Amino acid sequence: MAVRVAVAGASGYAGGELLRLLLVHPEVEIGALTGNSNAGQRLGSLQPHLLPLAGRVLQETTPDVLAGHDVVFLALPHGQSAAVAERLGPDVLVVDMGADFRLHDAADWERFYGSAHAGTWPYGLPELPGARAALEGSKRVAVPGCYPTAVSLALFPAYAAGLAESEAVIVAASGTSGAGKSAKTHLLGSEVMGSMSPYGVGGGHRHTPEIVQNLSGASGSPVAVSFTPTLAPMSRGILATCTAAARPGVTAESVRAAYEKAFADEPFVHLLPEGQWPATASVHGSNAVQVQVAYDGSVRRIIAISAIDNLTKGTAGGAVQSMNIALGLDETTGLSTIGVAP
Amino acid sequence: MAVRVAVAGASGYAGGELLRLLLVHPEVEIGALTGNSNAGQRLGSLQPHLLPLAGRVLQETTPDVLAGHDVVFLALPHGQSAAVAERLGPDVLVVDMGADFRLHDAADWERFYGSAHAGTWPYGLPELPGARAALEGSKRVAVPGCYPTAVSLALFPAYAAGLAESEAVIVAASGTSGAGKSAKTHLLGSEVMGSMSPYGVGGGHRHTPEIVQNLSGASGSPVAVSFTPTLAPMSRGILATCTAAARPGVTAESVRAAYEKAFADEPFVHLLPEGQWPATASVHGSNAVQVQVAYDGSVRRIIAISAIDNLTKGTAGGAVQSMNIALGLDETTGLSTIGVAP
Amino acid sequence: MAVRVAVAGASGYAGGELLRLLLVHPEVEIGALTGNSNAGQRLGSLQPHLLPLAGRVLQETTPDVLAGHDVVFLALPHGQSAAVAERLGPDVLVVDMGADFRLHDAADWERFYGSAHAGTWPYGLPELPGARAALEGSKRVAVPGCYPTAVSLALFPAYAAGLAESEAVIVAASGTSGAGKSAKTHLLGSEVMGSMSPYGVGGGHRHTPEIVQNLSGASGSPVAVSFTPTLAPMSRGILATCTAAARPGVTAESVRAAYEKAFADEPFVHLLPEGQWPATASVHGSNAVQVQVAYDGSVRRIIAISAIDNLTKGTAGGAVQSMNIALGLDETTGLSTIGVAP
Amino acid sequence: MAVRVAVAGASGYAGGELLRLLLVHPEVEIGALTGNSNAGQRLGSLQPHLLPLAGRVLQETTPDVLAGHDVVFLALPHGQSAAVAERLGPDVLVVDMGADFRLHDAADWERFYGSAHAGTWPYGLPELPGARAALEGSKRVAVPGCYPTAVSLALFPAYAAGLAESEAVIVAASGTSGAGKSAKTHLLGSEVMGSMSPYGVGGGHRHTPEIVQNLSGASGSPVAVSFTPTLAPMSRGILATCTAAARPGVTAESVRAAYEKAFADEPFVHLLPEGQWPATASVHGSNAVQVQVAYDGSVRRIIAISAIDNLTKGTAGGAVQSMNIALGLDETTGLSTIGVAP
Repeated sequence: MAVRVAVAGASGYAGGELLRLLLVHPEVEIGALTGNSNAGQRLGSLQPHLLPLAGRVLQETTPDVLAGHDVVFLALPHGQSAAVAERLGPDVLVVDMGADFRLHDAADWERFYGSAHAGTWPYGLPELPGARAALEGSKRVAVPGCYPTAVSLALFPAYAAGLAESEAVIVAASGTSGAGKSAKTHLLGSEVMGSMSPYGVGGGHRHTPEIVQNLSGASGSPVAVSFTPTLAPMSRGILATCTAAARPGVTAESVRAAYEKAFADEPFVHLLPEGQWPATASVHGSNAVQVQVAYDGSVRRIIAISAIDNLTKGTAGGAVQSMNIALGLDETTGLSTIGVAP
Repeated sequence: MAVRVAVAGASGYAGGELLRLLLVHPEVEIGALTGNSNAGQRLGSLQPHLLPLAGRVLQETTPDVLAGHDVVFLALPHGQSAAVAERLGPDVLVVDMGADFRLHDAADWERFYGSAHAGTWPYGLPELPGARAALEGSKRVAVPGCYPTAVSLALFPAYAAGLAESEAVIVAASGTSGAGKSAKTHLLGSEVMGSMSPYGVGGGHRHTPEIVQNLSGASGSPVAVSFTPTLAPMSRGILATCTAAARPGVTAESVRAAYEKAFADEPFVHLLPEGQWPATASVHGSNAVQVQVAYDGSVRRIIAISAIDNLTKGTAGGAVQSMNIALGLDETTGLSTIGVAP
Repeated sequence: MAVRVAVAGASGYAGGELLRLLLVHPEVEIGALTGNSNAGQRLGSLQPHLLPLAGRVLQETTPDVLAGHDVVFLALPHGQSAAVAERLGPDVLVVDMGADFRLHDAADWERFYGSAHAGTWPYGLPELPGARAALEGSKRVAVPGCYPTAVSLALFPAYAAGLAESEAVIVAASGTSGAGKSAKTHLLGSEVMGSMSPYGVGGGHRHTPEIVQNLSGASGSPVAVSFTPTLAPMSRGILATCTAAARPGVTAESVRAAYEKAFADEPFVHLLPEGQWPATASVHGSNAVQVQVAYDGSVRRIIAISAIDNLTKGTAGGAVQSMNIALGLDETTGLSTIGVAP
Repeated sequence: MAVRVAVAGASGYAGGELLRLLLVHPEVEIGALTGNSNAGQRLGSLQPHLLPLAGRVLQETTPDVLAGHDVVFLALPHGQSAAVAERLGPDVLVVDMGADFRLHDAADWERFYGSAHAGTWPYGLPELPGARAALEGSKRVAVPGCYPTAVSLALFPAYAAGLAESEAVIVAASGTSGAGKSAKTHLLGSEVMGSMSPYGVGGGHRHTPEIVQNLSGASGSPVAVSFTPTLAPMSRGILATCTAAARPGVTAESVRAAYEKAFADEPFVHLLPEGQWPATASVHGSNAVQVQVAYDGSVRRIIAISAIDNLTKGTAGGAVQSMNIALGLDETTGLSTIGVAP
């Protein structure tokens, strides 16, 4: 019997990507689709790439509309998930693609998001140590941010294996879809094509505390993070270049061994053969993560680089993967490691 | 029992796209993969987006390697298919993604391709009148060119319904993957990003006679074609803007009715609602065709515009669609109308 | 003594490009800069590429602010120029970069712009027959639209020489800056990168009557125009592919001769050597126009293709060129035919 | 009397950009243009954006052809400059845009370039401490690499002022023109559009020893460098994100003061107002450098980010700037700080 799924926030990029994946998920039946400012509009005009759903009409995001589903995905602006989630019963699986329930530390939430902390839900990055167990059977899932997904998967093996000192320096480039579908001048095609630019420099990006939380968790002790996100002239993709000083005694071989072990059984994370480096184009539209790691002996640093699709593994694909685990389905159901390239 | 498929020419863009589709085709088992200049290399280094096939090694394109398959796809340079095909028995389904067997007229072939004409095979554009019947059960299929696919689907309803005069003016923009994976200076990223440029102007493009053949076939009498292809700064996609003078008595309503009728039962061709126009992003990675048509009364012309993914519906998706028909499978097996956007 | 110039509307793309050109114009001193919604802001934050003007602050667009200049450029939304212009004295050279004073026919204006027609000023496309004489000494100039510039320069020689039948079919691709700097969802980088799409199909684009006016003027009798603009994934540039049926007796030689004659003395229009086709990248940031023309004997059509930078020759460069003529300066002062490529 | 200039290697991107700048340099007359594999070809077909030089024909790079010029620019493959330079007399100003004479340390050269070290010439990054004096009157100039230009200008003030610890972590994104005009598969538009990818990771990039040399020089003691270059989907531009641990006692104020002091009199380096970050689009085609710096107290690191045009300030503009100094001209002659945006 099909799992009946509703999507609150179906008109944006995260919602659209989620529907793209749900359409090919063999266990899912797509139910209510909502979108407040676009309620009443045909999905065909809002998401013209989703032809099988072209005739569906968006509804208001109300408890009545969302009732009667086994799973409700929330693709809402930050801070709005809690109010919707509490109206959904405890038996409904609620998968929040916003930030609301990601952070453990209420002070971090308040500092970066400026509102009261709503709580913490099991964290939907199954590849992190201990994460899968927390997701199994859970009725609430907090989907990670796109940057934290790319960065944590690149660096956690080094921290989990005790290879890296407690400060990481991270520079990540993201496609523009990570900034959402709201019309803003600095996101116009005319502005972004042909241009690279940083933002949120100096620890200001909201994903910083989430990265700190993940790496500290893998390490078992606090990890400080210098995180610089940059906007790249492409629609999709994150390339995260992550470095950390190596602890004494670390060698290229011990680094590689740690990464091979960490990802040996992971269905979506591929440690590339030595000498081959990730490219975001290779994971376009795919739930795969490409990772490569090197040890630079001249500066005694570990350099780990990952490529993901920010909308797939970084948002909607990660959400579906966690849903699969929470529902007891095979984790890879409906998800692909095949990119659309060139 | 799975259909066993070989791909000759698996290292290029057409071959890579074909493998992307075959990997999710439920009836297919991927057999031999060949690529002459790249024989011996891992597919993981040549097509890094196809992670499930990363460990496969390319072989030489020889009769022995291609033997023992139910279907052999040929993604070879123009002029090389006949020699390979004749070594494959009459019971093997051979799907040629090159130009060799598309044209009826040997003189056209010789003029545009400069070699002896190899023959004519059933033409793999099922949506054209009569095409499906010729493909059913056939053991040989000539996959259409990418431009002829986009243009013919945009215009054939007007000609089949007798609405258009016998001259069409077509300007089409293509992504760079249509020019293939060979390293050429004018196809460097530095050259194409930020630039639009025409080529093959004045009837010189090799797809011109194929377009003429298709439109003349739909019309029942010769159609002359002014075809200008342009290179656009994107990897994938064709947008074909096609116009023809309307015959006396044509109205906006009669044009729309003809298109609605032509595509009513087509699984891949979507006539958009009035007022919505195609965009190549909406069919990125999809086998769908988006079509819109208008009648401009001020100049009495029909304007039909289509968007396809040149590598999917324009090449590999069209090939799989025809394979399905030839094998007696449901035509849509393994193919999607969902694009990867944004 | 320097010509003192004010720019009303300095925060948009047209205004920014104009300032880029005026900064290197040897006869000009940049005076007041205005921008209503951005009044009070530093130009350094609005136009960060114009470093020499970074410290300038935008003022309100009022008669007092604009007073005391020899030349006032208006880069305002359509329909707002007349009210500003009438407050500027008859001795001030007013160069309107909007559409308000381009059209001769009031009915055309009202149909396409929906307001009362403000009048007609000398038309700032000096290359058109008779246009230079009208601009010399004029105190009012209507700068052409970007598409009409590209299309008219590609086709007028064919019409002026009586080579073409009275219907032209035009498909043009434009970079996104032609749509301006206002934040709109469909112009987001995520939407436009990797996508080609048409708009204003079927005669609906406001530049259609302007193209008709120019070609009819060159022909001496009415020319009908089928014009389809498309949005291309690049910031700048227009590639206009223009075709028209050839009149009886026309040959490739007579076509080429007409174009060579038309552009022989033009400083900005370059008829490329036979076999070389325009590319928008070659005129990026330049006031040059690259034109090529062919005669396709198989369909008896003339195919003329032009490339311009929509912001330079298509807007601000054309404005400066006309200012030069109106002021009696050398027409090329401060303008370049050198593109920024790759 | 004009300075007569020859350019050896005029068909590539560096040579083309140099000619673009020399065409508007008021003291220069462009003499011989050479290009071995392209000798005999019109520049109009090789550099179609340089319309004023379209009719010039490339010659062979021989001593006779290069004789009789005041300045000879060498835009040759690495390792070829010495042989050409030694045939040019000691009174000719030779400006080498290749790497041959940049490094002090012969062992570094041999390790990274694999040939015998040709020597060391005055280094053409005038903004570095002491560099201008060495360039004045010199007859030999080694133009810096593009990455070292961007990185050194971002970080040298921190090292010169003793604010940073002796290890820098740098991640830089470059447009594809930095990889040159040779046809290579991985640089095809189809490959690079929509993709970010790293290369030369782990200290392998040839620009690493040059960066080390510059930062160590500014510091007065060895600086270790972790440098990761990435390829971005744009033609031009480098965005360098550079971080280093702050020494004890460093504050946000002391960092800003050091940068303000370092760039106070620099004509091309602009320290942006606090809160505004560099974007490569803002320096497209310009010799300007945009720099911003922050102090992240949570990790006690200095983060300095610069944007340059890799072909202008990063190559040809830097070369002209150094030529001006060597010849005793005003350093800014013929150079602009105005970008071509959007």
